[in-house]
Amino acid sequence: MDKIKVSIVGSTGYVGAELVHGFMSHPDVELLYLTSETFKGKKFSDIYPVMRGLCDIVLVSTEDVPYGTIGKESDLVITALPHGVSSAVVPKLLEAGCRVIDHSGDFRYKDIETYKKSYKLEHPHPELLAEAVYGLPELYRDDLKTTRLTANPGCYPTCSILALTPFLKEGLILKEGIIIDAVSGVTGAGRKEKLEYSYCELDESFKPYGVTGHRHSTEINEQLSFLAGDGSGKAVHAAFTPHLAPFRRGMLASIYCRPDGLFAEGIDSGKVRDVLAKYYENEDFVRILPEGVMPDVKNVAGSNFIDITGVYDEDTGLIKLFSAQDNLGKGAALQAVQAFNAMFSLPEGTGLSTLTRGV
Amino acid sequence: MDKIKVSIVGSTGYVGAELVHGFMSHPDVELLYLTSETFKGKKFSDIYPVMRGLCDIVLVSTEDVPYGTIGKESDLVITALPHGVSSAVVPKLLEAGCRVIDHSGDFRYKDIETYKKSYKLEHPHPELLAEAVYGLPELYRDDLKTTRLTANPGCYPTCSILALTPFLKEGLILKEGIIIDAVSGVTGAGRKEKLEYSYCELDESFKPYGVTGHRHSTEINEQLSFLAGDGSGKAVHAAFTPHLAPFRRGMLASIYCRPDGLFAEGIDSGKVRDVLAKYYENEDFVRILPEGVMPDVKNVAGSNFIDITGVYDEDTGLIKLFSAQDNLGKGAALQAVQAFNAMFSLPEGTGLSTLTRGV
Amino acid sequence: MDKIKVSIVGSTGYVGAELVHGFMSHPDVELLYLTSETFKGKKFSDIYPVMRGLCDIVLVSTEDVPYGTIGKESDLVITALPHGVSSAVVPKLLEAGCRVIDHSGDFRYKDIETYKKSYKLEHPHPELLAEAVYGLPELYRDDLKTTRLTANPGCYPTCSILALTPFLKEGLILKEGIIIDAVSGVTGAGRKEKLEYSYCELDESFKPYGVTGHRHSTEINEQLSFLAGDGSGKAVHAAFTPHLAPFRRGMLASIYCRPDGLFAEGIDSGKVRDVLAKYYENEDFVRILPEGVMPDVKNVAGSNFIDITGVYDEDTGLIKLFSAQDNLGKGAALQAVQAFNAMFSLPEGTGLSTLTRGV
Amino acid sequence: MDKIKVSIVGSTGYVGAELVHGFMSHPDVELLYLTSETFKGKKFSDIYPVMRGLCDIVLVSTEDVPYGTIGKESDLVITALPHGVSSAVVPKLLEAGCRVIDHSGDFRYKDIETYKKSYKLEHPHPELLAEAVYGLPELYRDDLKTTRLTANPGCYPTCSILALTPFLKEGLILKEGIIIDAVSGVTGAGRKEKLEYSYCELDESFKPYGVTGHRHSTEINEQLSFLAGDGSGKAVHAAFTPHLAPFRRGMLASIYCRPDGLFAEGIDSGKVRDVLAKYYENEDFVRILPEGVMPDVKNVAGSNFIDITGVYDEDTGLIKLFSAQDNLGKGAALQAVQAFNAMFSLPEGTGLSTLTRGV
Repeated sequence: MDKIKVSIVGSTGYVGAELVHGFMSHPDVELLYLTSETFKGKKFSDIYPVMRGLCDIVLVSTEDVPYGTIGKESDLVITALPHGVSSAVVPKLLEAGCRVIDHSGDFRYKDIETYKKSYKLEHPHPELLAEAVYGLPELYRDDLKTTRLTANPGCYPTCSILALTPFLKEGLILKEGIIIDAVSGVTGAGRKEKLEYSYCELDESFKPYGVTGHRHSTEINEQLSFLAGDGSGKAVHAAFTPHLAPFRRGMLASIYCRPDGLFAEGIDSGKVRDVLAKYYENEDFVRILPEGVMPDVKNVAGSNFIDITGVYDEDTGLIKLFSAQDNLGKGAALQAVQAFNAMFSLPEGTGLSTLTRGV
Repeated sequence: MDKIKVSIVGSTGYVGAELVHGFMSHPDVELLYLTSETFKGKKFSDIYPVMRGLCDIVLVSTEDVPYGTIGKESDLVITALPHGVSSAVVPKLLEAGCRVIDHSGDFRYKDIETYKKSYKLEHPHPELLAEAVYGLPELYRDDLKTTRLTANPGCYPTCSILALTPFLKEGLILKEGIIIDAVSGVTGAGRKEKLEYSYCELDESFKPYGVTGHRHSTEINEQLSFLAGDGSGKAVHAAFTPHLAPFRRGMLASIYCRPDGLFAEGIDSGKVRDVLAKYYENEDFVRILPEGVMPDVKNVAGSNFIDITGVYDEDTGLIKLFSAQDNLGKGAALQAVQAFNAMFSLPEGTGLSTLTRGV
Repeated sequence: MDKIKVSIVGSTGYVGAELVHGFMSHPDVELLYLTSETFKGKKFSDIYPVMRGLCDIVLVSTEDVPYGTIGKESDLVITALPHGVSSAVVPKLLEAGCRVIDHSGDFRYKDIETYKKSYKLEHPHPELLAEAVYGLPELYRDDLKTTRLTANPGCYPTCSILALTPFLKEGLILKEGIIIDAVSGVTGAGRKEKLEYSYCELDESFKPYGVTGHRHSTEINEQLSFLAGDGSGKAVHAAFTPHLAPFRRGMLASIYCRPDGLFAEGIDSGKVRDVLAKYYENEDFVRILPEGVMPDVKNVAGSNFIDITGVYDEDTGLIKLFSAQDNLGKGAALQAVQAFNAMFSLPEGTGLSTLTRGV
Repeated sequence: MDKIKVSIVGSTGYVGAELVHGFMSHPDVELLYLTSETFKGKKFSDIYPVMRGLCDIVLVSTEDVPYGTIGKESDLVITALPHGVSSAVVPKLLEAGCRVIDHSGDFRYKDIETYKKSYKLEHPHPELLAEAVYGLPELYRDDLKTTRLTANPGCYPTCSILALTPFLKEGLILKEGIIIDAVSGVTGAGRKEKLEYSYCELDESFKPYGVTGHRHSTEINEQLSFLAGDGSGKAVHAAFTPHLAPFRRGMLASIYCRPDGLFAEGIDSGKVRDVLAKYYENEDFVRILPEGVMPDVKNVAGSNFIDITGVYDEDTGLIKLFSAQDNLGKGAALQAVQAFNAMFSLPEGTGLSTLTRGV
């Protein structure tokens, strides 16, 4: 079989680099163009010396190789661009005939008003929102097979939604009062020359940020509403609070919700885990942890796994769910590899099994 | 004035060492006995080389210098012992005539049944529970002046209770549905030879632990109940979940609650902060942060400060409170210095102003 | 082709676990037995939850599956045992008919007296020292093809020797006065329940250790002597000093030596790098860095690469060489995979290309 | 006694902030002006929230409060400015009548040519080089008493010079072949918006930098030459190599040298330590560690201590010296407090004893 030609637009940010890392070892993929406006003419491995000898592709500017060319020569183009930029670039790529996985927030919403409110931007191509598939294979696998445009989910949304999916979809918890307290490693902030992300400012540090109005809040709630059966995307108003912690990769969500209906009767921690285990029994990358084992970001770093568990707290009547993933892995670039596999009808684990880090 | 003679029983754990650090520079204190069963005969600075030349006191065993002697010769004895041990030792010290600040959970509860349920232990001296004063100067300053026995609060309880106090005491929030999601640095686990606390296991790691039935949960709820006007200590059932994060010192609590009554009308983030700022305006060690500044554990490390702020989240109708302290500082040893100052009618900041770390 | 059956004796230490990680994704390998005396009956992934779903092999005790059985059923057995234990176990495995890669110091020396002096132990099978091949493929590739017994090099020796090899072998530097100042991440200390390796003791810490008489010193000097043409292994007396630094994986050596003979005339940094680049031009895992790029442990973490560069310092007349590797990768387990490939006449990079970590 | 009025020019970099931290708790000091061009009008504690309530002084620009005013109203001005800037500012301050401690390299050299070669700059006031006293109290205590201008030593020079002083001054080692391999925490790079100092680039990283021609190399060698009796400052050519390690504060030097003359006969590690202990027996801030205890950066963090030890390595005939200090403490700002005490004839430990961090 001919290899599938994949290009990455915006390849030198942390998500871009993890995309290169993920796709370069995919057995069915040929990396075609890696673009960078800042570093054009340099080798990818000049920017990421870890990749010397593994990925020495020369970076090109989209001024030199226009989107039309990239889109025409590639089977798939992955865009790792800022929001507001993607919304203009992606249509050009689609027009050139390729399929696209976009990493920004520009195509993640179904409701254009929610997008506008969240990103404070007009959208030049709102008609694409309906067509775009939210790239969570566990939820939208069938739609991914045929879509031209996949909107790769945000990192916080991925770990929040996957933990809650079985409970909301099956009506086992109240839609009201869900609280999501989440923590990200620093790569989540991107590759930026900012004092606030310097080593001396973040080492031995821990703090909340974006405590009201974080964009991922609306993304989470639209998807949770769909799961709860509300097609308008407005039914769920989970509270979301992110924190920044001193490690490079990884993300953990601690989620509080309340059992509903029959599920509330005779509930215990085992039954909470059973719901998770049964729902995800055929999934390659969702690991439901047994009693007494808690998700830890170190156990998912470098991989596409998300580790989930849950307990029922008798003292308060709450279900507590915990999910951990690599913010660059299942939370971004490796989820894109999984979605790519779904889009091209390959086994979903192709190219993903060996990336998990060891000790 | 003669110096106040202070001894520390159990001086080589992390809390014990921070007690030494805190009291050794107190202008009104003479450190008398530092005990250690494991390291007797060695200098304190042999165990903590950072203290070489600053605290070279020779450690004694309580076999060689019995509790009766320590209690007789000291004005104050501080016990940094495991729960279940303190309950037997403290009465001996009191009997010898000194005053005591105890760091275990053995004297923190008013309700003996809650203690038994939380610690799975009988208590040999339940009569002392009524006498003991919970050592939060911000709440029990007057009682500390005269008490023989101060029960130094737990670290998680301190940062949880102080953030909620103004709201519960003034009836501004619902007692129901409070959620406390908290994170501790690794010194919180103590100085232990355990694989789970080794560098390789915790570096680049983040995880929840004790997600149901953590002992600090009952301690928090008894005090929150008192604040809410319930003398039985049973009215509040806040959900509490601790996490372990890769830094040495520091603790952050993210707290979710719901405004009640008139306070709910026209509430905004400014009003939430105003409640905090007004309540704590005369406190030396509670810093209410202005709009846009979030508590960060690095800003309280080494100090007795607790930094608190709050917001109102319009999307969910929740108040979010955030508080950061040093788990060994305001969360343990330096809080004991503050309580000591209150007990001996010294200005509460005595000896505490220079400990804050710089950059 | 039938897969090559590989067993790992002592699979739950950090080196053992990295061996599992390295060999489990090797396309030509079937993992047969993973032994652990401490954790027998548990799954490997119970001990390393990161491997859940990837390596769920049940650990066996060598009491239940004796060395004879393991050695008979396996094509290759890898021993990750303490020194003094390996020397007794390895002969049993060889006798059972398998080939062996040993990770201890027991078979790394040619001179039995140097071994005795270094390890303060008698050796039950000194006759095997002559037969054992020092498992540095870059130096002993041909011998590895046919040997029954490979002695996997120490971590510090690997990065010290490979940096100096081109210069000593070609007589370009003085044998006298070589100084090796090296730094290791904490996994180098092994998976141990010791206070000195706890997070709180090592975070924000940096210190030398083993500053005289470290065992790797004699191992380094025997091999450097061979490279310098001295078959007795006594000609070189490089000074070696290790340090412990607060990161999990990685090792860096800074090496000081003096140019000799014609090479000293007209020497500059470019010529130093040229020697390295030419010598290693056909090696898969030795990367000679260009001008201005320094080895960094983060760029080799998780991989079998060693990154090397060098400069000539005009002010002092010294050559400074710098080499970085993953102490568990090229410094231990992945070097064993490379040696395995050499032993079984497979392309040396087989199974190793995808392990490098990304960002 | 009236307090001594101290101003700090350039108070918001890491050295500046540590100067504020050090001087604000000095019992004989009143902080007058803190300048910042970037943050003028803000409170110091807005930039360093750790200092909220402890140092809320409003920052002024030197446009609004000119150097003449600052110098006239202050008894001492401390300049924490870049090299090339200090050389122009310091003369203005001196002219206004105050004394000055400067933190740049502009006044550290006696030989103007060495300065020019090292900093690639002309010097507008070379006449001040002769007058300036190199601010190492252990070496130049008497000169500090009367000088108008103290050149605060570099961080690497401080820990290199103090370890070697007893041996060079007493002629116990060869001047030739000294090698200094040193490691700094990240605050050593300053408070900068640069990608290379971002958390994600430095966490889990370790690398050499400035491996030839680092400015501190010439500063070290001029001072070592003076110690060796060479007034021209050219006799010693120690090789110096810095590395960057993932911790915030601290610096360690590993130094290799060779015993000379009678000292070489019968030398052992005890004699090496004896030389150090005897030389420094009356120093407050130099701690010579006993056998088996190695300097560790965590034990000096936050303090003005430098911990030193040494061994003799029989295998190579080398003396190995190890010294650790806080790069911002004894390596910069707290050393300035010590020099200040010397300059104003105060006990040298004034204001410095309580800064050491605990656990």
